[in-house]
Amino acid sequence: MATTRFQTFDEAADPAAAPPRIAALRTELKRRGLDGFLLPRADRHQNEYVPPAEERLAFLTGFTGSAGFLIVLPDRAVLFTDGRYTLQAREQTDPAVFTLVNSAETAPTAWIEQNLASGLTLGYDPWLHTADSAEKLEKACAKVGARLVPVSANPVDAIWDERPAPPLGPIVLHDQRFAGETSEDKLQRIATEIAKQRADSLVISDPHNVAWAFNIRGSDVAHTPLPLAFAVVPKEGRPTLYADGRKLSNAVRAQLSALAEIREPDALLADLEALGKAKATILLDQATAAHALTKLVEAAGGKVVRATDPITALKAVKNATEIAGARAAQARDGAAMARFLAWFDREAPRGHLTEIAVVEALEDFRRASGLLKDISFPSISGAGPNGAIVHYRVTERTNRRIAPGDLFLIDSGGQYEDGTTDITRTIAVGTPTEEMRTRFTQVLRGHIAIARAVFPDGISGAQLDTLARQFLWQAGVDFDHGTGHGVGSYLSVHEGPARISKLGAVPLKRGMILSNEPGYYKEGAFGIRIENLVLVVEAPPIPGAEKQMNAFETITLAPIDARLIDVSQMTAEETAWVDGYHARVAETIGPLVDNDTANWLAAATSPLPKP
Amino acid sequence: MATTRFQTFDEAADPAAAPPRIAALRTELKRRGLDGFLLPRADRHQNEYVPPAEERLAFLTGFTGSAGFLIVLPDRAVLFTDGRYTLQAREQTDPAVFTLVNSAETAPTAWIEQNLASGLTLGYDPWLHTADSAEKLEKACAKVGARLVPVSANPVDAIWDERPAPPLGPIVLHDQRFAGETSEDKLQRIATEIAKQRADSLVISDPHNVAWAFNIRGSDVAHTPLPLAFAVVPKEGRPTLYADGRKLSNAVRAQLSALAEIREPDALLADLEALGKAKATILLDQATAAHALTKLVEAAGGKVVRATDPITALKAVKNATEIAGARAAQARDGAAMARFLAWFDREAPRGHLTEIAVVEALEDFRRASGLLKDISFPSISGAGPNGAIVHYRVTERTNRRIAPGDLFLIDSGGQYEDGTTDITRTIAVGTPTEEMRTRFTQVLRGHIAIARAVFPDGISGAQLDTLARQFLWQAGVDFDHGTGHGVGSYLSVHEGPARISKLGAVPLKRGMILSNEPGYYKEGAFGIRIENLVLVVEAPPIPGAEKQMNAFETITLAPIDARLIDVSQMTAEETAWVDGYHARVAETIGPLVDNDTANWLAAATSPLPKP
Repeated sequence: MATTRFQTFDEAADPAAAPPRIAALRTELKRRGLDGFLLPRADRHQNEYVPPAEERLAFLTGFTGSAGFLIVLPDRAVLFTDGRYTLQAREQTDPAVFTLVNSAETAPTAWIEQNLASGLTLGYDPWLHTADSAEKLEKACAKVGARLVPVSANPVDAIWDERPAPPLGPIVLHDQRFAGETSEDKLQRIATEIAKQRADSLVISDPHNVAWAFNIRGSDVAHTPLPLAFAVVPKEGRPTLYADGRKLSNAVRAQLSALAEIREPDALLADLEALGKAKATILLDQATAAHALTKLVEAAGGKVVRATDPITALKAVKNATEIAGARAAQARDGAAMARFLAWFDREAPRGHLTEIAVVEALEDFRRASGLLKDISFPSISGAGPNGAIVHYRVTERTNRRIAPGDLFLIDSGGQYEDGTTDITRTIAVGTPTEEMRTRFTQVLRGHIAIARAVFPDGISGAQLDTLARQFLWQAGVDFDHGTGHGVGSYLSVHEGPARISKLGAVPLKRGMILSNEPGYYKEGAFGIRIENLVLVVEAPPIPGAEKQMNAFETITLAPIDARLIDVSQMTAEETAWVDGYHARVAETIGPLVDNDTANWLAAATSPLPKP
Repeated sequence: MATTRFQTFDEAADPAAAPPRIAALRTELKRRGLDGFLLPRADRHQNEYVPPAEERLAFLTGFTGSAGFLIVLPDRAVLFTDGRYTLQAREQTDPAVFTLVNSAETAPTAWIEQNLASGLTLGYDPWLHTADSAEKLEKACAKVGARLVPVSANPVDAIWDERPAPPLGPIVLHDQRFAGETSEDKLQRIATEIAKQRADSLVISDPHNVAWAFNIRGSDVAHTPLPLAFAVVPKEGRPTLYADGRKLSNAVRAQLSALAEIREPDALLADLEALGKAKATILLDQATAAHALTKLVEAAGGKVVRATDPITALKAVKNATEIAGARAAQARDGAAMARFLAWFDREAPRGHLTEIAVVEALEDFRRASGLLKDISFPSISGAGPNGAIVHYRVTERTNRRIAPGDLFLIDSGGQYEDGTTDITRTIAVGTPTEEMRTRFTQVLRGHIAIARAVFPDGISGAQLDTLARQFLWQAGVDFDHGTGHGVGSYLSVHEGPARISKLGAVPLKRGMILSNEPGYYKEGAFGIRIENLVLVVEAPPIPGAEKQMNAFETITLAPIDARLIDVSQMTAEETAWVDGYHARVAETIGPLVDNDTANWLAAATSPLPKP
């Protein structure tokens, strides 16, 4: 098809390009009096998606994963990746040049302490590390008698001849009918939080938080409508938004000028220096603020409070408008999913579909609404054994034909102005095995345990995570990822601070949207994941209750493949949940789809057989 | 009856005695140039049970709870207690003298920051605070311009005319057939841990850990066979045990001398000073080591590593002998419980039993084994509304007659040389209401969810706690205590580091013994708690399992009152668990009891009715 789609399927990897680049970098480092260089896969905001100009790690190594860390020394180059990227890193890099290390086993700091020769001077770009991470690296170097020094310009950029230009995605206003709260009101609440933390000003270093605070969206990175920008909000007075002027139309500029001073990004440094000289106390977000910011403020005489940007907590709790938007987006997305699933059920058993064809079809079904702004991440489309690769991204090379007997896993989502979606369905092609049905049912029971959970205030995702795993554990298996992550409102599909995982220490609050996505993966055979988004709500009244409880409302609406459910392994409450969910799917989605899909949907959502 | 029992029922409270004592303390403080004094309810080891000589807080205030903190100032005296003691503190103290503060709402440090006048000099006894807690208090005082200074002798002792003598409970050897590992081997393992932490010596400040390391027991405090003693273990060489020589028979001294130098407790100070002067690195347990020890080592020039005494983790994992002992102790204790429950079922409906009579009878049934060394804590014997008071301790004044229609809650345990027990049963007297049965069934389902849990390595009690609460949460209720605590082997019935609670971050390991005790409390009406001890074991083989899992073996053996179980609210797996448990109880306990009890037991453990 000729349509340009959001998802591409090329292999970005080119192991052969890397060696001369590493050699050129070594020459450049030598010229600057450096023996080596530390480079994380990061931009100035610690974003998950970064613009091409920030893909320095991929440029230097060939490795295109979303997390990695490179140590270049005169005689070797060591690339650290975590477990999910071990295989990909091996395929994408030249073993003659790069030593690969699993960062879960040996972190860069530990490697430095064990391997670095004393007397070396290493450089790092203080814009690409948080203060905490830079200080840990400094300490590790100091321990072995090496020196870590900041560079003022990144040496990779000096050798990157065709480095893409920084993005200039237009900034657009995020309408009040989607945002539900004016930027003025948000800035008021932010100022209150800044005062509570006894700071004079907050630097918003996370562009998601800039987007939320000013009710703007951008298009500087893939799949998330981010405007790459900084802001400074004082506890009293007018904020400043640091954004490239070329991203602003006159109309948008006029609107934003009512809220804030608009300055070029470069002005941030001078402004922070001035605040530092005035002995101001500056709140910097420990998760996203670059070490360069901390150093600048402190060098000028200011005081830095390292904390969590208070916007992160405010943004996580969706208001009534955002919740209504999320429900509307889910109905629209669910209709596209229903059309897709009906189509898949017709086509897949014929054995001619491929993983890529399915991704393209699904994107087309979503685009048909006319409201799709982007996909919320590259769809994970895994047939058979590819479904067992948790972070699988299909390429022309790995593209697999979907055959009868396969389980097919599709994890996808859409960006709509009223909401961000994220859904995973696992579908039987032809007749599934008993093993597949048993595992699917175990995963489903965990999914239902989360969906039906009732819990008091103060309970964190870590305390609920076990509910999703209990049936898998009883079967002697588990899954190696969290059960759920927060989701933004026309923002990132992975939004903090709450999550349902062993590490989710933040209490769940009403208005938060999270994913509920337990899974099971049999290496070399098949993968199962069942993902819906859930909204934290007040639990319905309970007779005899002594306190008001919280519950989840499942807002994702699409059938769960009943052919994979073994009702004999489920309780009556669990099958009733599936039937109730399917009834709601049919009622909400049915009116939105064509007749063929409606017929398919009626069958797909009919009550489960009695055991 | 004339028997002396372990449990007493007197009201220790005498609010009238306190005011002159506080006045005398103020005079003493003035004499020493102090404006005030901080006093926690603590001894030198931060023990749960302390000898009478250490009950300074009760002497000064009348308050006899196990946790409290007093701030005496020239014009007021503020007593901090947590929620469970709010009522008791009000009843036991003179409101004209003491201001009561809920420490969960306002900690002493927060109170100091909000209320203390600047310029004051307060004293504290550095033997009664850990280093962390003393430093937090110092910081809080400094913030408001007050000064906190250590006293060399406790001023309360100076005004306490009839202060009891420190205890001289004989130290006995804990036989190899109970301990299962020689002290030599334990000391080897401890030395390895000390070296791992890069320390030269460990001060064992927790007498439970002294008892474990040297395979000794004592009788210096109630209900726990503790020898109040310190020890110093070097990473190489001979340890020193600091114990009052009068506690040692010649035979015990001879045995212990093969393991360690024996010195008087006072010698600890000189020895630590010498280690400090030799620039040694000393590992001090942050939970139990007194601030006095940290100060001493540091003042002498040594280095202190604040960590967790490695013995705490070693001791928590029971060896095969200790596990066999625990099972034997549980069978013996279960037989006593069965005799007790059969007796209770005969007597209680007649309406003549009291809470105290029941405690006395239960102690007698336990004593009848001839092996009871002590009860493991004062039994909680609560009829009707008294059952809803979580930490209820019956006294002559509160003693309640048990009437038909009551729920009766009895939480008790025994100290046997082969194991420590802890069990709670809730019993229907006459016909229970539907509400009682519903709540009991909800609590029981949570209990069963823990008992049946299967989980991989690395899972903590915090991750399992929710399993116990899920059914109560769904009913809109909860319980305000942890689900379970660790239990020692003929040691403390409350043993760290693992626990099943929101705060239980320590991974559960095979060989740990914990309690499983969810509950429900309806204020003014009734209380329900179902408590068994569970042992972490390797899960039985699971077909299709991909990793070896862990599970709990319920080791407490006594019937659960089936009259309170509503099987229509339970799953088939849950009723099967109850039936399987009862079958095991009948099989193990049946042969150990008299005929009447055996008949009662057969009925009490017969399969539940089908729903």
